[in-house]
Amino acid sequence: MEIKREEISQWFQSLQTKICDQVASEDEGATFQVDEWQHTAGGGGKSRVLLNGKVLEKAGVNYSAVEGDAPEGLLKTLEVNTEKDAAALTFFATGVSIVMHPSNPMVPIIHMNVRYFELSNGIYWFGGGIDLTPHIIDRQQAAWFHKELKKACDQHDLAYYAKFKTWADEYFYLPHRKETRGVGGIFFDRLSADGNKTKSDIFEFVKSIGECFAPIYTHLMHINKQRDFNDKHIAWQMLRRGRYVEFNLVWDRGTKFGLQTGGRTESILMSMPPTAQWKYDYQLTEDFEKETMELLQKGVDWSQI
Amino acid sequence: MEIKREEISQWFQSLQTKICDQVASEDEGATFQVDEWQHTAGGGGKSRVLLNGKVLEKAGVNYSAVEGDAPEGLLKTLEVNTEKDAAALTFFATGVSIVMHPSNPMVPIIHMNVRYFELSNGIYWFGGGIDLTPHIIDRQQAAWFHKELKKACDQHDLAYYAKFKTWADEYFYLPHRKETRGVGGIFFDRLSADGNKTKSDIFEFVKSIGECFAPIYTHLMHINKQRDFNDKHIAWQMLRRGRYVEFNLVWDRGTKFGLQTGGRTESILMSMPPTAQWKYDYQLTEDFEKETMELLQKGVDWSQI
Repeated sequence: MEIKREEISQWFQSLQTKICDQVASEDEGATFQVDEWQHTAGGGGKSRVLLNGKVLEKAGVNYSAVEGDAPEGLLKTLEVNTEKDAAALTFFATGVSIVMHPSNPMVPIIHMNVRYFELSNGIYWFGGGIDLTPHIIDRQQAAWFHKELKKACDQHDLAYYAKFKTWADEYFYLPHRKETRGVGGIFFDRLSADGNKTKSDIFEFVKSIGECFAPIYTHLMHINKQRDFNDKHIAWQMLRRGRYVEFNLVWDRGTKFGLQTGGRTESILMSMPPTAQWKYDYQLTEDFEKETMELLQKGVDWSQI
Repeated sequence: MEIKREEISQWFQSLQTKICDQVASEDEGATFQVDEWQHTAGGGGKSRVLLNGKVLEKAGVNYSAVEGDAPEGLLKTLEVNTEKDAAALTFFATGVSIVMHPSNPMVPIIHMNVRYFELSNGIYWFGGGIDLTPHIIDRQQAAWFHKELKKACDQHDLAYYAKFKTWADEYFYLPHRKETRGVGGIFFDRLSADGNKTKSDIFEFVKSIGECFAPIYTHLMHINKQRDFNDKHIAWQMLRRGRYVEFNLVWDRGTKFGLQTGGRTESILMSMPPTAQWKYDYQLTEDFEKETMELLQKGVDWSQI
């Protein structure tokens, strides 16, 4: 039997709870507060935010399930044929979005999103992604991160990792800086049943991605949270957070789409760092800065390192 | 005789020098450094930045005069008919852009831009604007600012101020926050000769706007720079700077256009504040916060206050 949207949204909601519990446990300092909200169109969501923890300065885990009339602009963006029956179309969208900003610059920033979208005409797809943004790149950790993602992908399709890793390189990229946001990860969109996969197969893949988040990130928190850092690392972290802001506000399609279509601003901008800085024409000085910048490029084959 | 682009760009360049001299003199702490750069297409510019002055934490005054083949995307954006002779079209653009971020939250942020654009087919226009973003609104100062702008406009056309003030209310607006960036000012675009005005008339108007910047802002620096402030004012300033970042990266057409068409990133992002903060779902507490937010709306008739 075809998987229903309620099953998907319930699974996403339970994923939110599980991730918050595991991350808060590793943080040992703060817990996630809950904010429930309604969407102007229909449905709503739960935003969970952890502030000023021992490891995480700001972490947001957002769950939503919204529905309403499919706006024409949306259909256009989605390249859906609106000639036939647009007037009657409604949409349903559900997902979990995560961004975590640690206070210790040795702990990387992480982002994850898993989402499901359907129109009342039967069109649907899954999308998602997970990418890591170390302030200071540790090659071994970046390679480990990619190998974990590859393992999760390989359970479902041996072609997935390579394809979705390249997609992430393209997506998490700042053209105006000629640099990637971090060491990448995977990104996928518009996955639906085809000759090889059922809707259920794809949902199982999305579940695997959702489920690998907490073990991956709590491990990275665990091995880095006690590491020493100094003022130079903090100053650099503030500049890298500035780049994170630039990516999210200038290039991230989800953020732009949300802000332009009346999404809940506070939930969308949970991804913003608590503090960010910009320095005019900053020149790299420290070795860790130079090494990091050299690796913020597309096409690094992390799974082979 | 028709005004030539060289005359316009030279005037802009001299305006940059004059403004930097006067602002640095009022700052009494730092001077503007110069960075000359070339555009990939042709021409280039001079970025002048003052950092860590006594009044200004970061101030950027950018002059540019660039030219090159008119890219198809540009022509499309500009709604120029490309069917006829797009292949042969070149563009020339020159202007001065300013953003100043004071360290004392009692001194307002200011922005000014004056620009001239022409295509080799004879199409040209002037554009520009000036708007004030107090962290904490002082009604009298905001009214004075608008009256100064009205005086400058009235010398050239009694209809200008009302029209361009409304345009600024629309332009300097954050739809996702339902608030204006600050107390507005004036904004105008695509001004060219018509039955009432010659190209020279419009250039004279643009000169008046450019010339009113230094007296206006040095006055606002002067009367505010000694004012006391505390940690609450600073915390609020950081959040307002976050909004400034949101406007510039999400909504400002000039910034988006520049970043997406290969402009010089460091010059475009001189407008970024040195530091900015975001707090999840911040609730207004202080009276000065509430009073400021009440006034960040379109349609306040400042010239009548």
